[in-house]
Amino acid sequence: MKQATIIGLGMIGTSLGLALRRLPSPPRVIGTDSQFDAAQRAGRLKAVDRAERRLEDAVSGSDLVIIATPVGAVREVLQTIAPVLTQGSVVTDTGSTKRHVVYSAGELLPSTIAFVGGHPMAGRLTSGVAEPDATLFAGTVYCLTPSSSTPPDAVSAVANMVQQIGAQPYFLDPEEHDGLVAGISHLPYVVSATLMRVLASQQGWREMSVLAAGGFDSVTRLAAHDPDMFADIVKSNSDNVSRQLSLLIDALTSTRDRLAAGETDLLGELRAANSLRVEWERQREKSK
Amino acid sequence: MKQATIIGLGMIGTSLGLALRRLPSPPRVIGTDSQFDAAQRAGRLKAVDRAERRLEDAVSGSDLVIIATPVGAVREVLQTIAPVLTQGSVVTDTGSTKRHVVYSAGELLPSTIAFVGGHPMAGRLTSGVAEPDATLFAGTVYCLTPSSSTPPDAVSAVANMVQQIGAQPYFLDPEEHDGLVAGISHLPYVVSATLMRVLASQQGWREMSVLAAGGFDSVTRLAAHDPDMFADIVKSNSDNVSRQLSLLIDALTSTRDRLAAGETDLLGELRAANSLRVEWERQREKSK
Repeated sequence: MKQATIIGLGMIGTSLGLALRRLPSPPRVIGTDSQFDAAQRAGRLKAVDRAERRLEDAVSGSDLVIIATPVGAVREVLQTIAPVLTQGSVVTDTGSTKRHVVYSAGELLPSTIAFVGGHPMAGRLTSGVAEPDATLFAGTVYCLTPSSSTPPDAVSAVANMVQQIGAQPYFLDPEEHDGLVAGISHLPYVVSATLMRVLASQQGWREMSVLAAGGFDSVTRLAAHDPDMFADIVKSNSDNVSRQLSLLIDALTSTRDRLAAGETDLLGELRAANSLRVEWERQREKSK
Repeated sequence: MKQATIIGLGMIGTSLGLALRRLPSPPRVIGTDSQFDAAQRAGRLKAVDRAERRLEDAVSGSDLVIIATPVGAVREVLQTIAPVLTQGSVVTDTGSTKRHVVYSAGELLPSTIAFVGGHPMAGRLTSGVAEPDATLFAGTVYCLTPSSSTPPDAVSAVANMVQQIGAQPYFLDPEEHDGLVAGISHLPYVVSATLMRVLASQQGWREMSVLAAGGFDSVTRLAAHDPDMFADIVKSNSDNVSRQLSLLIDALTSTRDRLAAGETDLLGELRAANSLRVEWERQREKSK
């Protein structure tokens, strides 16, 4: 990789730039953003070698193009860059859903350009760290969703980039990816936001808000995350999110019905949840 | 306060002991626990001056008795100590629900003994700090639920203790307390545990568990909390928890129905949740 272009210089794009420029043999990194301020900021942070205003200028001569815009903007970006991409270059993205993006790439990109969908599962994004960081991806899982027709060289190029920034490539089907992240990411977000609204719309909220402590804090923390970005994500994965919501609603309703019927002992299900969560923590520690 | 007894030397009881013994004019602190190991450990940690095996010996001569056992054990403790409490002494507790405890105290304690229900909202309890700590209560809200017939001197004695350990007394009715904490504490816990079970019972859980990152971590963290303690709490507040669950189920169902009907734009409700959560954070910072 001699030259990489990063389109969209938010948290992910800027952190990617920092990580790439820190490599032993770094590529030249060109950055662009629909808000030129963001591109200039990335330049000041030394996340890009050069900031460009126009998408067409930014992708010119690059062998890897990384689209790190919100999911909803990827299609338009692909439309704009398709005619001017360098022959044989590889395009990837960092969006939280993959079916729509992979479909758009197949439709819009010429057959000489390979597309490999990507999704970095960078956990710190939702835990309050607001500054771009070259180590954001270190030790994290990074989903890649090539299709059976994606040229192996293109898959290797993106997988190598992922490994170079310290992440672990995790290959899966776009369809499967979107089903899994609906459960593990989009459902928790919708639940967190809904719980926040349900509590704050009650008469007792003024008093509740004074009493709210660690438990409330932890479960509603995601609600503070960028709502525009998440609305975009949910929109592109609404069938899966709806299905996950139904599963959760059924389980909550079953618990509510038991409580309402006077079966007030939830010990069995609370212990089960505890074991599952502790086991997840154990596996996560092991994989670090 | 010359001598205080702490019954139940878990996280709260032991931290209370450490905090009391650190006061400029500390009371003598007697500790007891149904598991004598716990009392001995509190002694080693210097959270108590003396550990006693028998409840009756532990409360003898104390002007303040603090019951810091699980909620479900308070009634039996009250029954045991009622005949041997020092005339004029004050009893309080640290349980997460207050109606049952206040009712039991009214029924079981002689009229010469005052009871003031208490509930420290110590946020760090659910955020992973496992060690008892003298500063656990510093800057936190501490609910007190005296009734109109509680002698003012008894209320002052407990409120003073609360202030001395750095917490802020917050007076409310037992009924009101239990309604508010059902929303702010018990609902988040049940939701966290249920989400954990719903995800882990799916076919894709093995893959999901690999992809799970910050969002999942934050929303399901409470599920790792002591399930026996929480089952006990839910049991003593099942009517309020059931009511809160219904409110959440209704809101989730409304969102699910909109998604299923193709109205996939959740921006309005996600922005509303974001504003509410950010405002809560702002108020919390201000009150620190």
